[in-house]
Amino acid sequence: MPVTDAVKSELRRIVSDRGFRDEPEDLITHAYDGTPLLEHRPEAIVIPQSTEQVAAIVRLANDADFKIVPRGAGSGLSGGSVPVDNSVVVLLSPRREILEIDEANLTALVEPGVVTGTLADAVAARDLFYPPDPGSISICTLGGNVAEDSGGLRGLKYGVTHNYVMGLEVVTPTGEVLTTGGKAFKNVAGYRLHDVLVGSEGTLGIFTKILLRLLPRPQASQGVVAHFACLEEAATAVAGIIAAKITPAMMEFLDQTTIRCVEDFAKIGLPRDIGALLLMESDGHPAVVAEEAAQMEAICRRAGALHVAQAADPAEGERMKTARRSAFAALARLKPTTILEDATVPRSALPEMVARVEEVARRHGILLGTFGHAGDGNLHPTLCTDERDHEEIHRVETAFAEIFDIAIELGGTITGEHGVGLSKKPFLEKLVGPPGIRMMQDLKQVMDPRAVLNPGKIIEPRPRREGRLPNTQAEAEAMARSMMERP
Amino acid sequence: MPVTDAVKSELRRIVSDRGFRDEPEDLITHAYDGTPLLEHRPEAIVIPQSTEQVAAIVRLANDADFKIVPRGAGSGLSGGSVPVDNSVVVLLSPRREILEIDEANLTALVEPGVVTGTLADAVAARDLFYPPDPGSISICTLGGNVAEDSGGLRGLKYGVTHNYVMGLEVVTPTGEVLTTGGKAFKNVAGYRLHDVLVGSEGTLGIFTKILLRLLPRPQASQGVVAHFACLEEAATAVAGIIAAKITPAMMEFLDQTTIRCVEDFAKIGLPRDIGALLLMESDGHPAVVAEEAAQMEAICRRAGALHVAQAADPAEGERMKTARRSAFAALARLKPTTILEDATVPRSALPEMVARVEEVARRHGILLGTFGHAGDGNLHPTLCTDERDHEEIHRVETAFAEIFDIAIELGGTITGEHGVGLSKKPFLEKLVGPPGIRMMQDLKQVMDPRAVLNPGKIIEPRPRREGRLPNTQAEAEAMARSMMERP
Repeated sequence: MPVTDAVKSELRRIVSDRGFRDEPEDLITHAYDGTPLLEHRPEAIVIPQSTEQVAAIVRLANDADFKIVPRGAGSGLSGGSVPVDNSVVVLLSPRREILEIDEANLTALVEPGVVTGTLADAVAARDLFYPPDPGSISICTLGGNVAEDSGGLRGLKYGVTHNYVMGLEVVTPTGEVLTTGGKAFKNVAGYRLHDVLVGSEGTLGIFTKILLRLLPRPQASQGVVAHFACLEEAATAVAGIIAAKITPAMMEFLDQTTIRCVEDFAKIGLPRDIGALLLMESDGHPAVVAEEAAQMEAICRRAGALHVAQAADPAEGERMKTARRSAFAALARLKPTTILEDATVPRSALPEMVARVEEVARRHGILLGTFGHAGDGNLHPTLCTDERDHEEIHRVETAFAEIFDIAIELGGTITGEHGVGLSKKPFLEKLVGPPGIRMMQDLKQVMDPRAVLNPGKIIEPRPRREGRLPNTQAEAEAMARSMMERP
Repeated sequence: MPVTDAVKSELRRIVSDRGFRDEPEDLITHAYDGTPLLEHRPEAIVIPQSTEQVAAIVRLANDADFKIVPRGAGSGLSGGSVPVDNSVVVLLSPRREILEIDEANLTALVEPGVVTGTLADAVAARDLFYPPDPGSISICTLGGNVAEDSGGLRGLKYGVTHNYVMGLEVVTPTGEVLTTGGKAFKNVAGYRLHDVLVGSEGTLGIFTKILLRLLPRPQASQGVVAHFACLEEAATAVAGIIAAKITPAMMEFLDQTTIRCVEDFAKIGLPRDIGALLLMESDGHPAVVAEEAAQMEAICRRAGALHVAQAADPAEGERMKTARRSAFAALARLKPTTILEDATVPRSALPEMVARVEEVARRHGILLGTFGHAGDGNLHPTLCTDERDHEEIHRVETAFAEIFDIAIELGGTITGEHGVGLSKKPFLEKLVGPPGIRMMQDLKQVMDPRAVLNPGKIIEPRPRREGRLPNTQAEAEAMARSMMERP
């Protein structure tokens, strides 16, 4: 049902006038997120100032039958924050307080709107470490990270967001407040609900507090950069480093297209004619770091690197990392529409994946740059195109469908980091199979019977069985009465 | 409904005669697990020889309305494998093949009956490492570990079983075969179903293949042992080690009661009159290990240790670890019934927890030894009693209820490692609250509508709403007809 004036009045009552927005400029600016080609206006935006207000908004949505789309920074890359029909955006970014940093238990308790980089800096000041570092770290929010189970450059050694969520205060799709997990480092009491919730892309709950695990800060780090004539040699070096039982803190690669774009953008002296660049980092105890950096250098040389060098100082290491982090923005300068994907394969399949992705791009005549997390097989094939060129968009979509098929064929997945959202719904069934889809639909339906939270993200709502099944005794009796009235 | 002869014939048809057991001695020996005080005979035991047979057994249970209790080694400590009314035990321990060790991708694919220690040894032979080491490592199965999300001595540094499960082939409670996760190191495609399944204690699925993450084997390790006059000083040392940003591979403590029992049992020269013993280990790069071991030694001395020594060689380190692992068995010699619990608190609350547990034991006049994983706050208060002494058992149960309350009050949990099973059901709602219980019941009901798999473990089946709600269109129409027939 439409979000009526009566509903808007009730929303204003819950969040007060200053927490309510429905002017055209508000609706337009909250109609999209970081995903190209997707846009849909909400009916209103509400800014809750407490957990209780979030719960009240969700209960109202259940009663009045409108939808809710949670939003942090709106920087997601799979459409998770793009509004759906008949929806109200619940904006969490203003709730951005770091509530507690507990050095004795190595935890941080935060509100969902805290920017990831802000937390990382705050704990670093206390000699602690929050490792997950998505490319958008300076703007994305921790609530969004938990919803999408965000990754980053450090995934191979340090894991991703779900490895750091110890507990959640969450408003469920029916408007109850649930606290799950906690500071106890080990906890097997009941189903691991907060693990279900992490990566649920706004469909199973709205996070109002997040308890995160911290690590001690690594004492030292050392960057190493290597140039290769071709991707195959870079991939050989990657395999060699893993085989040597080294787990680098970072192992990123960029292909020639990406290198050229980054150099045009950042002008840091990258050579424009090499086939691939590997950016590595070791962190930890100084003795270990020195040894690993030397080993990685040697392995790259053995794999045929044209040039290998250790970063002269931390500042140079940071410059290289910033160049890598700017890859997306640099590629975005080429054409109006940049589609960043993240098909991921087991690391051993990386060389084959890269070669086949290049072949697909060539065959469809599209411009593609590939960069990514070599250490964990998480590639970002990035297509540069123009959404107004419908013919090219068609070729781009065909190419991506092939790329997902290849990833699945090689034992990988359709998304390593960005989530399914709207963008990858069509490909999920091929990956998880019909039983997997049905289990996810069952889970969603039982937790959100009225399909209030972000419906249509990840999966379609469960298809109704023949006829309509009642959810309550009252409905069952109404149905019985209607049957009695049938001709 | 009872398991009829017709059902037994059908089971024999599925698993063949050699896979079917229902002699009295089979039923008796499969009526209990490692949990004291619980016993219930199944109707039969079946030994499936393939995933398809497991699926057929589960489908039969859905059709014929009997229950299934999965079993590995039957070494669990919360009643997870204890049969329920009208149940058939599905024995997975004979399915014990290591299917693959992939050194390039650092994964191992195993059948559920592989003994944990067997896998650990197999990968160690290839210079790889599977860290989770429950106390029962030489007998427990990986399928059981996944069902219970087992921990061990290495939890603080290396995590627990759920940190190592990358994928599962699982037979769902309705008898479908689902594959979830995979070798791609990062995967955010859809709800994290395999995370829901890990720790589900046999209630949401039967694991037929498990894909586990491996690590490179640590190059070196060094044990350190410290004696203290009292637990408070030991706890101070623990806090000091964490504050020094050291993450030891192991940090175990034993109280005086436990030390005395272990010494009587193992005779390794432990002093009988100290208040507490700390067993530590650092592992990793040799330079780091030497440094951390020296630091831990210094911190223990500063905390007032009576004696501190580094293990002279790996063999001595192993002897100390074996002594710690034998704590349960050693305590079990004192009285006929040994109740091992695992109330867990945030590490900073450890000293208070230990002191209050001692006070509870004193006040109730029961014999208690406490040992555990000091680094992650996971205590094992172990009560030695005699189940035939009903008066004492009553005092023991009262004491444990108080201990769980204290753990929850201190921000902890009722179970760090052993699971809820049957033993801790009464305490779960206090920990997770009614919304948490309802969410778990909802999840269970949607995945297992006929309550086939291990019903009554973790949570009670969802209470029926007023009247009975139909599950199918046919049931709805039957209900409508019966309503029409009402007076």
